[in-house]
Amino acid sequence: MPRLLATTGIDPSDVIGIGVGFTSCTMLPTTADGTPLCLLEAFRRRPHAWVKLWKHHAAQPEADLINEVAAARGEPWLDRYGGKISSEWFFAKSLQILHEDPEIYERADRLIEAADWVVWQLTGTETRNNCTAGYKAIWSKRDGFPSNAYFAALDARFEHVVDEKMSRTLVPIGSRAGEWSERAAAWTGLRTGTPVAVANVDAHVSAPAVQVTTPGTMVVIMGTSNCHILLGDALVTVEGMCGVVEDGVIPGFFGYEAGQSAVGDIFGWFVENCVPPTYYEAATKRGVVVHQILEEEASRLQPGQHGLLALDWWNGNRSILVDVELTGLLLGMTLATTPPDIYRALIEATAFGTRVIIDAFETAGLKVAEIVVCGGLPQRNKLLMQIYADVTGRELTVATSTQTPALGSAMFGAVAAGAQFGGYDSIVDASQRMARSGQERYLPIARHHDVYDALYREYLRLHDYLGHGSNDVMRRLKEIQFGTRTE
Amino acid sequence: MPRLLATTGIDPSDVIGIGVGFTSCTMLPTTADGTPLCLLEAFRRRPHAWVKLWKHHAAQPEADLINEVAAARGEPWLDRYGGKISSEWFFAKSLQILHEDPEIYERADRLIEAADWVVWQLTGTETRNNCTAGYKAIWSKRDGFPSNAYFAALDARFEHVVDEKMSRTLVPIGSRAGEWSERAAAWTGLRTGTPVAVANVDAHVSAPAVQVTTPGTMVVIMGTSNCHILLGDALVTVEGMCGVVEDGVIPGFFGYEAGQSAVGDIFGWFVENCVPPTYYEAATKRGVVVHQILEEEASRLQPGQHGLLALDWWNGNRSILVDVELTGLLLGMTLATTPPDIYRALIEATAFGTRVIIDAFETAGLKVAEIVVCGGLPQRNKLLMQIYADVTGRELTVATSTQTPALGSAMFGAVAAGAQFGGYDSIVDASQRMARSGQERYLPIARHHDVYDALYREYLRLHDYLGHGSNDVMRRLKEIQFGTRTE
Repeated sequence: MPRLLATTGIDPSDVIGIGVGFTSCTMLPTTADGTPLCLLEAFRRRPHAWVKLWKHHAAQPEADLINEVAAARGEPWLDRYGGKISSEWFFAKSLQILHEDPEIYERADRLIEAADWVVWQLTGTETRNNCTAGYKAIWSKRDGFPSNAYFAALDARFEHVVDEKMSRTLVPIGSRAGEWSERAAAWTGLRTGTPVAVANVDAHVSAPAVQVTTPGTMVVIMGTSNCHILLGDALVTVEGMCGVVEDGVIPGFFGYEAGQSAVGDIFGWFVENCVPPTYYEAATKRGVVVHQILEEEASRLQPGQHGLLALDWWNGNRSILVDVELTGLLLGMTLATTPPDIYRALIEATAFGTRVIIDAFETAGLKVAEIVVCGGLPQRNKLLMQIYADVTGRELTVATSTQTPALGSAMFGAVAAGAQFGGYDSIVDASQRMARSGQERYLPIARHHDVYDALYREYLRLHDYLGHGSNDVMRRLKEIQFGTRTE
Repeated sequence: MPRLLATTGIDPSDVIGIGVGFTSCTMLPTTADGTPLCLLEAFRRRPHAWVKLWKHHAAQPEADLINEVAAARGEPWLDRYGGKISSEWFFAKSLQILHEDPEIYERADRLIEAADWVVWQLTGTETRNNCTAGYKAIWSKRDGFPSNAYFAALDARFEHVVDEKMSRTLVPIGSRAGEWSERAAAWTGLRTGTPVAVANVDAHVSAPAVQVTTPGTMVVIMGTSNCHILLGDALVTVEGMCGVVEDGVIPGFFGYEAGQSAVGDIFGWFVENCVPPTYYEAATKRGVVVHQILEEEASRLQPGQHGLLALDWWNGNRSILVDVELTGLLLGMTLATTPPDIYRALIEATAFGTRVIIDAFETAGLKVAEIVVCGGLPQRNKLLMQIYADVTGRELTVATSTQTPALGSAMFGAVAAGAQFGGYDSIVDASQRMARSGQERYLPIARHHDVYDALYREYLRLHDYLGHGSNDVMRRLKEIQFGTRTE
């Protein structure tokens, strides 16, 4: 921040509010004063004292338990999460700490989302936002958290987790969490007392950042993974959603979230592990990245020409199957298959994955008329965008900003300041004034869409066969793999 | 040959007989005097005037027709070929010439196996061997060729293909085809009049070359593809065999042949298309091939540790599914999957494919007690051999000779000469005296075999799901792919 202020010449007094967007559920155990346990000398070497990143997948046994007990007890909240709580979410991670290192659990005065922890550090006041609580910690405005009886059914020691280590006071997004502390001012050069917004999620703040503040337009935040945000007027059950939270994205609407666990990560894996030297040499010679060489060659292929089909489950499947044990599949290879063939098939697989999510929304009555994309990938890869338009059969607009999480967070900062102090009184106002809608549009090409319709049917058939229990080969392979580790 | 005689110092008078082994079905159209049509100026640019290599797969529509008509007519010979004639075989290729270039078909006085054509060029006499006729041209000692009525049902112009362009006189392997002609002597420096054996197949002559002349031991010739030879006392129906021919391998036995369309070809494809620069750099640095780096790293993995499963159908599936439209599959990838993981999974997939063939033999009552392997791959890749032993649960012996097709052909040359002239009177005699049995043995490791049993069950389940019609996705992808070519 000091460097940013210096290089841009911005006067700190022109910074009227601050918003923080963060990945979620990324959580950590701390002492009562917010010191992360991992910073205490006694716990440095204890894995569970450290931050658990959103993509931490080791709490699957806990997620299984959470789901079994919820189903057995008929917990009413399970529907809001598409029928399954992910191993990535808050209570699965917390319960894993309890199971695998009870002392760390015991010593954790607070279990807290990193988003809220950052705001705490900056303001000196612990607050909890309703967005991460709603999406990741099974909280809702109407029903609060699951009952203590439910938590006790998971583990007797877990009965009072909310009251002992969390908080039942959730502050709605768009509110002010506090003010910039003296300590934060000393770190950053920003003014003490500057309003700070309640913490929010990097993906969710992207919706206002791309001017989506009403139902009908799905926002896809594309990066290492895909996050899908859609607003609805009513609460309905959508298969395999990450969650739905009233006021969770834009106050006054139900904010639905879905996700694909790996997108850019798959392309990155492919370039790192599966591309022979000639492509690297071509990239070096032309001074471009390997992705560009592959994209150019893959662009010359017609849809269906490579004869391949992939399931994009390299990091499990978040929506709609909610199963981290699922793994990737590639089918159709011959001795003539080339790296650009596979690269294109992987892109298409992620687009099919997005279409499954759109279908789930529309089956539940939530229309997806068009799509706005943002994040790190869209502006770099035109082929990717065209394939997403062709596969989904929907017009696709690319956000102008490449930093929508930052822009959306800044909007919430402006709302924390309020109109009276040069900001805005609502996130809708901020969105209308601070965002520029995208200019780059991709229209589906009809004959591509037809071919992709046929390929999508094949994708769905394998998706259902391997994802819905007809053949649990992926899960069994993981069990065998796990067995070799413990030998 | 002149250089061979010169560098070895062998006296041509010590060469008492000559045998020729060749790939099959590799066939070509010729004039009445044996001139290949492709050598005539008028036909140089006509693809169907040229030789069709064994792995030519473009005659699938003709193979489909051959099978449909045979099934409709209840042709009794279909069972001998596992219920399906492959697009690789003789009549599918011949019919494709007729369909796609009738003039070439018309002008072809002879349609002939390259093996027989070579012997023709060397002796001046056209002969036809019973081995390729039996395995690739639906001929048997007891029933001859299919009826003219059957051929007419395929295409009226095809009715007399045997009488017009082939021969009903088939000479048994182990016989003499003729003598070295003056022309051949001028080419080579070998003596005019040297006995020449009836042509044979490179894979099939490997059985006597590794001293397998009785039932119970399966010979696997491993190279770009796998060929499996097993002798039986009786004629039984085995699912998806390439064929069974009485006296086809060793006189007095039924010679069963099965095959896997791609083995070494898959590993070669992988190294060429899917291995990143670091492995190439490591290979260059150490002065070894990339395969060796991959093999070393893959050797450090426990069975099942990589979590992957592949179907080895990069070039279709010959046995037991007899379907060239099938394609490769790889399943189980995560963001942590490495090239050696995949390399090992591909090796394992080919071993599972071999086990399917063994199971088919044993289901039909033909015991496979042990395995002898030969060909280009086994001596180069110890990991491959251990995996085959572990997957099949059988002792595996590697042939001492790296040139079993040459050795086996030489044995048949010795038999053509006969004992009276320094050779042998039977192939069994020649095998006992001229072969050395392998010294390198691989025993299955019990705990590996247990893990592979579990993985094999998974392989079988996907094999049956995708190979037996539950989900014809591979075929449909090829149809879509074909559609993009004709746009």
